[in-house]
Amino acid sequence: MDFDIVEAGEGRAVFAVDPQEFHYNPIGMVHGGLPATLLDSAMGCAVHTLLPEGRGYTTLELKVNFVRALRTDTGRVRAIGRVIDIGGKVATADGTIVDGAGKLYAHATTTCLLFSS
Amino acid sequence: MDFDIVEAGEGRAVFAVDPQEFHYNPIGMVHGGLPATLLDSAMGCAVHTLLPEGRGYTTLELKVNFVRALRTDTGRVRAIGRVIDIGGKVATADGTIVDGAGKLYAHATTTCLLFSS
Amino acid sequence: MDFDIVEAGEGRAVFAVDPQEFHYNPIGMVHGGLPATLLDSAMGCAVHTLLPEGRGYTTLELKVNFVRALRTDTGRVRAIGRVIDIGGKVATADGTIVDGAGKLYAHATTTCLLFSS
Amino acid sequence: MDFDIVEAGEGRAVFAVDPQEFHYNPIGMVHGGLPATLLDSAMGCAVHTLLPEGRGYTTLELKVNFVRALRTDTGRVRAIGRVIDIGGKVATADGTIVDGAGKLYAHATTTCLLFSS
Repeated sequence: MDFDIVEAGEGRAVFAVDPQEFHYNPIGMVHGGLPATLLDSAMGCAVHTLLPEGRGYTTLELKVNFVRALRTDTGRVRAIGRVIDIGGKVATADGTIVDGAGKLYAHATTTCLLFSS
Repeated sequence: MDFDIVEAGEGRAVFAVDPQEFHYNPIGMVHGGLPATLLDSAMGCAVHTLLPEGRGYTTLELKVNFVRALRTDTGRVRAIGRVIDIGGKVATADGTIVDGAGKLYAHATTTCLLFSS
Repeated sequence: MDFDIVEAGEGRAVFAVDPQEFHYNPIGMVHGGLPATLLDSAMGCAVHTLLPEGRGYTTLELKVNFVRALRTDTGRVRAIGRVIDIGGKVATADGTIVDGAGKLYAHATTTCLLFSS
Repeated sequence: MDFDIVEAGEGRAVFAVDPQEFHYNPIGMVHGGLPATLLDSAMGCAVHTLLPEGRGYTTLELKVNFVRALRTDTGRVRAIGRVIDIGGKVATADGTIVDGAGKLYAHATTTCLLFSS
């Protein structure tokens, strides 16, 4: 989907993408799958930054609220993932999608299961 | 993402996809964005089948549980969306992703806002 | 909250309650906490029915859609919890709240972490 | 459930409660319904603070992540609700439950439908 990783570290990860025509759905806006995928990536990556070597994670669930439609003229947006809580077995994180002016397009939370890989 | 609409009507819609290498994430399985996007599409389409002409919908939120990882050897999977409840302003739906043998890979719910377009 | 367990077994559990005045919130309908609590109980109990002795669970997350308001004249409602998937570490379940005529008031999903107690 | 409203205004509301024995479930910790109800109240109230006279809201859905168990020796906890986004028809909010030391017990998001009452 042409994402860029902009930043990752210390329980935080930022991905960026320019919404394109090929992300559109038939009703003329970017498919909800784009923000969902971006947020899933950013939140999972944020969790990953806090895991020591030999530990992995799998996403158990993802919940996304779609606040505004993304369009090609929205310009570059960033998905910012941030760990809320991390324990021995489970981590939770939240995420937001914002444009260059900081306007909010979507927000999400996730639950990840941690394991020894 | 190369989805096929297999069936749509009466508050139900089915999409299908063959998981491909290009759907993979760096940790060797299909990215959670694929089932999220498939389920979003199938559930939204299921809601759409119940709207009269001149009415539209927008997805307010989507929640997905990832139960098993999709891989290329999973073969063709179907996302089955089904309307749970539809009123004048709001509809809710659920969805499942199953393989050819009926094994479950993900399930989801969504809330859609209805409006006159 | 005066719940009754009506049925429990084989990945399914049913709780019942009569909405009462003391469940009301200041805006004149039953507080959303009542259906949330009922659904949490029914889904958790449904998971519990599938655990062998020495295994326990904890609820990681709960998502509830409120479809219709409960009122005292709704009469007795049932919360029906049902396991969707259970593995070695995680179970998911869904639940519905229905009245005597089968009309839907709320639906939910949950993710539970399983452990050896 | 013996909640106190501690603060409300400008898209933010805080409720407080002391977990009690009567909030316990049979497996020896506070029922998940307590944090769910507290968070539902705090987030709904936060939305309410931003509505002009003649406007009301109804909660469409609520998602709660349970991070740590509440016990009677947890002491007084606060549920802090905060509006994330509010438009003409829909508002979203998030919430957290923290103890006196700021330790996190649960976090949540919600979607509310706005209407003219």
